[in-house]
Amino acid sequence: MASVVANAALKESTAMFRATVKADVLKHIVEATSTLVDEAKIHITTDGVSLKAVDPAHVAMVDLSLGAKAFESYEAGDLELGLDLEKFKDVLKLAGSADTVKMEYHKDSHRLVMRMGNLVRRVGLVDTAGMPDPKVPNLNLPNKVVVSAEELHRAIKGSESLSDHVTVIADPEFFEISAESDLDALNLRLPKEELIELEAAERTKSMFSLDYLSNMIKAVRSGGALTMHLGSDYPVKMEFDLADGNGHCVYLLAPRIETD
Amino acid sequence: MASVVANAALKESTAMFRATVKADVLKHIVEATSTLVDEAKIHITTDGVSLKAVDPAHVAMVDLSLGAKAFESYEAGDLELGLDLEKFKDVLKLAGSADTVKMEYHKDSHRLVMRMGNLVRRVGLVDTAGMPDPKVPNLNLPNKVVVSAEELHRAIKGSESLSDHVTVIADPEFFEISAESDLDALNLRLPKEELIELEAAERTKSMFSLDYLSNMIKAVRSGGALTMHLGSDYPVKMEFDLADGNGHCVYLLAPRIETD
Amino acid sequence: MASVVANAALKESTAMFRATVKADVLKHIVEATSTLVDEAKIHITTDGVSLKAVDPAHVAMVDLSLGAKAFESYEAGDLELGLDLEKFKDVLKLAGSADTVKMEYHKDSHRLVMRMGNLVRRVGLVDTAGMPDPKVPNLNLPNKVVVSAEELHRAIKGSESLSDHVTVIADPEFFEISAESDLDALNLRLPKEELIELEAAERTKSMFSLDYLSNMIKAVRSGGALTMHLGSDYPVKMEFDLADGNGHCVYLLAPRIETD
Repeated sequence: MASVVANAALKESTAMFRATVKADVLKHIVEATSTLVDEAKIHITTDGVSLKAVDPAHVAMVDLSLGAKAFESYEAGDLELGLDLEKFKDVLKLAGSADTVKMEYHKDSHRLVMRMGNLVRRVGLVDTAGMPDPKVPNLNLPNKVVVSAEELHRAIKGSESLSDHVTVIADPEFFEISAESDLDALNLRLPKEELIELEAAERTKSMFSLDYLSNMIKAVRSGGALTMHLGSDYPVKMEFDLADGNGHCVYLLAPRIETD
Repeated sequence: MASVVANAALKESTAMFRATVKADVLKHIVEATSTLVDEAKIHITTDGVSLKAVDPAHVAMVDLSLGAKAFESYEAGDLELGLDLEKFKDVLKLAGSADTVKMEYHKDSHRLVMRMGNLVRRVGLVDTAGMPDPKVPNLNLPNKVVVSAEELHRAIKGSESLSDHVTVIADPEFFEISAESDLDALNLRLPKEELIELEAAERTKSMFSLDYLSNMIKAVRSGGALTMHLGSDYPVKMEFDLADGNGHCVYLLAPRIETD
Repeated sequence: MASVVANAALKESTAMFRATVKADVLKHIVEATSTLVDEAKIHITTDGVSLKAVDPAHVAMVDLSLGAKAFESYEAGDLELGLDLEKFKDVLKLAGSADTVKMEYHKDSHRLVMRMGNLVRRVGLVDTAGMPDPKVPNLNLPNKVVVSAEELHRAIKGSESLSDHVTVIADPEFFEISAESDLDALNLRLPKEELIELEAAERTKSMFSLDYLSNMIKAVRSGGALTMHLGSDYPVKMEFDLADGNGHCVYLLAPRIETD
């Protein structure tokens, strides 16, 4: 009899979520995701939260996870929450980066209740029924480059006045990103010794849309490093850590195929 | 004979105004007033300056005074000056906040001459003939709350994406400001011990337009406190000090009446 | 035979340009020039670089020179390069103010190659064929005033809401700049002792367009001094130093003639 009650309580608790986290961690997640989609389905388990999303043009994907250790306190069962990311971003503006946010899922009202100091914000959730569960493809990318996001960002910013795409080369000796217009050209070539890491058995070359690339690199916090996995005319897989290593973000971006 | 000359000189001097003041004090007054009106009639006496104004929609009123002690030097008789507040704001941009502004009324040209360092700005005045002399109504408001303007401002900023008005409750135990939309809600509830002061014999509740409230609270300098006097479905009277306590600003704001 | 080879190498080298300079020096030059023209013809010699340009309305002229000492390294022959100033400004945004820029003219591709750290930007040049070689007129201006650009800038900023032009007076005792509208007026009068220098044998008075004047004064770095040479209803010649005294910029601005 006692076990039946306990079981019912257990089932009930599987749909629960109660956690405390630095506002800055939430802000970073929203930044990294909202560059691709307006709404996202958050998977919550006892181990942490995660989300996968594909942009409307099906050119890019984000696969983000945040372990329970990224939170100051964390209690959760199995749960899926649909978030309007623009709204969530606005709510987070009410907290300073160093402030702490308490979140709790209220099952009855189907709302996420967020507490920032004395301020209580009940956030209506989005129906997750129609939202896809994208499968992250298993890519076999031969080359790996670890590079300062800041240096990359400068090259991408400088490319935007020349073109809508860049060419990215990984070579056993160097990593290069370049763009050109009729009269002008830009390239950033980083020799192996100026990269954090370079593992390239063969030279690979792909072209990528500047719009996507620029937004993705902005999501790496300044001073951070970005790991790129590259092939020839193949998607790039980019990854970086979140929340002091307690979270991780992976982007996939399809190549542009040269047609001239 | 001597006394006749002295008398004439006295009469003449009653229309005089010559004062020196920190630019920041003038900037604060203009901020607090221009949120409601474009032009204002300034009353000048030997004791200081004051102004009363009602916004064009007759929803809000400002009653502001600045004692002679708020000035670094002050000589004045009885005088009324009509100010174009946008123009006055522009003129004050020529001075840094810590700079001193010398003002003098030139009766013959009917201009206010403002000196900031070597810069002299003669400011044309507005005719005060048509300007009303609003009477400040004597309200009997049962509850009084003194609250940090910063905390209030955060709640109001967060409410703006949800609604065009907020509900304000003063209770013997707490003060609360809240807003809601179909799916979302925000509330800031400050218990008595987190308020600077709370005197509430009974619970009162009123609704106010966010536009007005937001602008009025912006006029309290950061770090400052705001005193609110509240009733049920009654105007709110809000007051705060200016110029290190040598000035005072009172706002009245009519309630919005619930109709559903 | 040896001398023939040497001669050919010499001729070849006359069209060369290879120099290293602080990004800030280039930014300053572009700021000072782009206020008048979109494109400029740069004259390069062994002694340094210079440019002269007239604005499309033929109201103002800039005559700018930068000695070889303004560069950290400098090797050049005789060369003329046509620069798109907006593009050049964008390229310089890729460098921090304290960064160093290496420039090299590539004759074969007719491009200026700019290196900022690992970033290489090949900049297409503009055809200089149609570009005029303006002659700087030899003006005989009786009065000279050296004034703080910051004080002047404040007066000009304050004049913009009153008029589209200012009146500038140089007098043996003072320098004055003033503007007025129907109701309002502004003037900055600096007595001789508050000027850095004043040499005025007679009083002169001219009117100048605020648009031009405002942009020209912005080109003087904050904290800097501006030398003005003035006559009556005559162009003003304004000059200031660049690159720690290793460069110099001269503006000429035609007067507006009073017609009322």
